[in-house]
Amino acid sequence: MSGPGTVTRVVVVGADAAGMSAAHQALRTARRTGRELAITVLDRGTHTSYSACGIPYWMAGDVDGGDELVARSAEAHREAGIDLRLGVEVVAADLPGRTVTTADGETIDYDELVVATGAPAVVPDWALRPDGTTYAGVGVVKTLDDGAAWVERFAEAGDGAHVVVVGAGYVGVEVAEAAMRHGFGVTVLTRGRGMSMLEDEMAERVDLALCDAGAEVVLGVEVTGLDTDGDRVTGVRWDGGSREADLVVLAIGVRPATGFLRGSGLEMADNGALRPDPHGRVAEHVWAAGDCCEVRRRLDDQWVFRPLGTYATKHGRALGDSLAGGTLTFDGMVDTSITRFSHDEVHLEVARTGLSRADAEAAGLEPVVVVTDGSTASGYMPEAEPITLWVMADRTTRRLLGVQVVGGRGAGKRIDAAAAVLWHGGTVDDLAWMDLAYAPPFATAWDVLQVAARRVAERL
Amino acid sequence: MSGPGTVTRVVVVGADAAGMSAAHQALRTARRTGRELAITVLDRGTHTSYSACGIPYWMAGDVDGGDELVARSAEAHREAGIDLRLGVEVVAADLPGRTVTTADGETIDYDELVVATGAPAVVPDWALRPDGTTYAGVGVVKTLDDGAAWVERFAEAGDGAHVVVVGAGYVGVEVAEAAMRHGFGVTVLTRGRGMSMLEDEMAERVDLALCDAGAEVVLGVEVTGLDTDGDRVTGVRWDGGSREADLVVLAIGVRPATGFLRGSGLEMADNGALRPDPHGRVAEHVWAAGDCCEVRRRLDDQWVFRPLGTYATKHGRALGDSLAGGTLTFDGMVDTSITRFSHDEVHLEVARTGLSRADAEAAGLEPVVVVTDGSTASGYMPEAEPITLWVMADRTTRRLLGVQVVGGRGAGKRIDAAAAVLWHGGTVDDLAWMDLAYAPPFATAWDVLQVAARRVAERL
Repeated sequence: MSGPGTVTRVVVVGADAAGMSAAHQALRTARRTGRELAITVLDRGTHTSYSACGIPYWMAGDVDGGDELVARSAEAHREAGIDLRLGVEVVAADLPGRTVTTADGETIDYDELVVATGAPAVVPDWALRPDGTTYAGVGVVKTLDDGAAWVERFAEAGDGAHVVVVGAGYVGVEVAEAAMRHGFGVTVLTRGRGMSMLEDEMAERVDLALCDAGAEVVLGVEVTGLDTDGDRVTGVRWDGGSREADLVVLAIGVRPATGFLRGSGLEMADNGALRPDPHGRVAEHVWAAGDCCEVRRRLDDQWVFRPLGTYATKHGRALGDSLAGGTLTFDGMVDTSITRFSHDEVHLEVARTGLSRADAEAAGLEPVVVVTDGSTASGYMPEAEPITLWVMADRTTRRLLGVQVVGGRGAGKRIDAAAAVLWHGGTVDDLAWMDLAYAPPFATAWDVLQVAARRVAERL
Repeated sequence: MSGPGTVTRVVVVGADAAGMSAAHQALRTARRTGRELAITVLDRGTHTSYSACGIPYWMAGDVDGGDELVARSAEAHREAGIDLRLGVEVVAADLPGRTVTTADGETIDYDELVVATGAPAVVPDWALRPDGTTYAGVGVVKTLDDGAAWVERFAEAGDGAHVVVVGAGYVGVEVAEAAMRHGFGVTVLTRGRGMSMLEDEMAERVDLALCDAGAEVVLGVEVTGLDTDGDRVTGVRWDGGSREADLVVLAIGVRPATGFLRGSGLEMADNGALRPDPHGRVAEHVWAAGDCCEVRRRLDDQWVFRPLGTYATKHGRALGDSLAGGTLTFDGMVDTSITRFSHDEVHLEVARTGLSRADAEAAGLEPVVVVTDGSTASGYMPEAEPITLWVMADRTTRRLLGVQVVGGRGAGKRIDAAAAVLWHGGTVDDLAWMDLAYAPPFATAWDVLQVAARRVAERL
């Protein structure tokens, strides 16, 4: 890097969670280390630092407006000393020459490049008009503009409108909730069995909850096309079937926006994701964090693509610190995630951490799994809600390998205690015997997580 | 112990959580190890295996009847092959001779003795009539009979009745909630500052919540006596003050019921608590678990008196297993506990784990503490509730030492992730950077626990 007295020109591509966490942390750390940084952040969009995860709740009406999802405004970033340029798309990078080129043809020099371009939502060819645009009534759920479009579509849709959600991952389930809140009919279509981050026996409880709340769930279909009136969508077709639709939400995944780095020689996953080290470095003078990257899973030391905001902010922060001479690292993750489906009387919290059974087998481990039903509070309390735990440990080492939770209010965040055990490489005995909090409104005397762990321990 | 083919006579004194966990686990393990056990359980009371922690919620009306608090009935214990004798008080033990003597003068031989006598509530002298009974309207909250008496007193009390709760620990706060649910006026009197398991800055938030909900809270008073009409209580007096009262709840603590072992040579704490090893052993042929014991705190390797059901069931289970030839151990605790105060619009969850600042200083550590305010969910979500975290770490080793939480719905059980880090001896950096679950209804992108940990990490 540059010596004292000289200014390091940092160019950050992407002004969302990872990029802005990196930029602000770099400035904070630079004050301590005495580095002089000139930070330019380029983003092709018009918004910064917003919570993409919050968009389904904006669509549902829980959040009043898109502004509420913005953690820090463009003005606030600029006041902190960041040269933020919105509406600027980077289309090429010359790593040996240390320049990036924008769509407008401008070439920008850098000393250090931070790639934080995120991962736009996938729009399959079958959803596009011949000219490459989407039909009216069809859209993805990723940017604030997407959110605003959905809020408008929902407002305009008539009382009997039917919404088809393609994809039953976290976003699909959250959007189904949002649509049902407006009283729309909802159909969820999914290629496989839905909720692929859960084991079958847990995922099916989510399907059932959607059905209980009045949604149609169609598993195992590969969507092949849309029916339209030429301008608007009128239905969705798959091999051997179809469903009329007024609105179609595409929630089938995201893909790293790293096209401008193709041919640069940087190591990339098949989907184009970068693989930064714990400091966020991918090559000399090149750094990356956030949804355009894979993350390292500590349990089996595998790279996996998990475009989650919590990894983006953590890795971004470590990157910014390291860039400015600090020592912070993002030491990987244990594959924790959470969501909920809530509509009228149905409220299901869903969370997971650790390996799947397939992951464990691929790693050559000997997984033993037990599924346990229990209660979130003492059975005699009004707070008691059903909860089901899937717990997996390794037969030989007794190491805890994974936990999945499906249950009522108070079920989901219980995953954190299991995630902490996984973080520390603990055993299923640690989970069974450690000191979790008990009082009747909050748990049973042996917390259900500990009952479930004990049952696995007894099978090893 | 005894050889194959012979029967080991186990006498368990006390038929509650610890004793019955031990008895049932011993039977389970014996089936595996081939030991033959004849288990006799003696209890001076009339109930077994009930949740004492649930009594305040029964008093509040959340629980329909005392039966709901009974985890397993006397019949169920007997059907499992346990010789359960209720209404039998053990008044003496001859350890060298391996006998116990009952109040009726019966002498019972044993090969192995399990002491699980619990800890009755303390009734101070000032609360007693000259004949040693309590005045009408005065009682403790410990046994099912106590609970039934309070349910009756609450039902009989008129609309304007005033309840004075002496003691502001967990039970005091829970009973205050119960009394307020019935619309009674409530005064909480406490010797020190209340909620002594919390640091001052956290405890005062509980006092404020009680006040907000309409209770009178009087801190720093030493109650000296009761006013009575000769039969019923009419008020409570302290040095320089008094309060009229229709009912007085004594919630000033419990004391191990180990009087019958005095002079036996067993190691005891000042209050009479026993100190069993991880298998539950206190001496050859003598075992103990539950509220009549201290428990080992892993963090500073100190014995402390924490009469909690979760330790009783865990230690009891390890004891029963070990007694029958198994290897289970209760490897101490990290001092986790939780409660809540909830009345009308006021809902405060309170939890703690680890050392207090005074504990840390006594252990020669260099505690650094930061208090952080945050939110249980993303700020834009309706689920977001305020939460305050007190986090302490050691300056030299960066080890996490303790966490305390006070906040709205969803705040309390967050303590478990911190308890897991403490269990594993992790650092404040582990807590800050580990992989806790994030989605907008459940957390901020950096969970508030991690924001709080990060702020401590930055001060070390």
